[in-house]
Amino acid sequence: MEENKYPGVVGLKEKFGLFDDLWMPKIVAQLNDYHVKIAKVQGEFDWHSHPETDEMFMVVAGRLVIELPEESVELGVGDLYVVPKGVRHKPVAEKVCHILLLEPAGTVNTGDAGGDRTVDAEWI
Amino acid sequence: MEENKYPGVVGLKEKFGLFDDLWMPKIVAQLNDYHVKIAKVQGEFDWHSHPETDEMFMVVAGRLVIELPEESVELGVGDLYVVPKGVRHKPVAEKVCHILLLEPAGTVNTGDAGGDRTVDAEWI
Repeated sequence: MEENKYPGVVGLKEKFGLFDDLWMPKIVAQLNDYHVKIAKVQGEFDWHSHPETDEMFMVVAGRLVIELPEESVELGVGDLYVVPKGVRHKPVAEKVCHILLLEPAGTVNTGDAGGDRTVDAEWI
Repeated sequence: MEENKYPGVVGLKEKFGLFDDLWMPKIVAQLNDYHVKIAKVQGEFDWHSHPETDEMFMVVAGRLVIELPEESVELGVGDLYVVPKGVRHKPVAEKVCHILLLEPAGTVNTGDAGGDRTVDAEWI
């Protein structure tokens, strides 16, 4: 929705109060052709990669583990991590975790893996 | 410094503890050809614009006012705002404020205004 491209001041706390579905990223801001998204996550997501782009995760509340081919990284509040382009990863959160994502517009949450958890992110 | 392109988990709290200079953005992460930067700011910056790119501000601690041609917006912790490409703006903070910036690599802090507050952001 191009009319939302510059939505003004975005309050993350307010935005996280608007939904409870898990693993369903919502777009909150656009910077050139990049989207800032937020999501609530809990449990294990599917292994996937994004062959065409890096992807940034930042934790706003809770803790997130990102499993990678050779290690796992754990992020607490205020931590961020960039998954390099093409690197397989699997986000996992024991409890509900609030994350902020940064990636090019059109990047699909399940990357090259597809499957029934694939969603087209919408603005919130 | 290309070797820093994927620095692993970045803790914003730790990074903000490493410096005290004002209006001097430091690079903490790179996503494709975009940089995530952090800065401490207080007082008034110079009016400027970035003719070639949008610029995202997010407040991590404190309060930031962004003066714009026809209004001012005020951001508290967890608020973010995208200044559209080419729009003149002047960040102002009464007290020390910690901000996160997102913009293409190479974007200069003073934009088209130049002047002696121009800095080449470096990794921290």
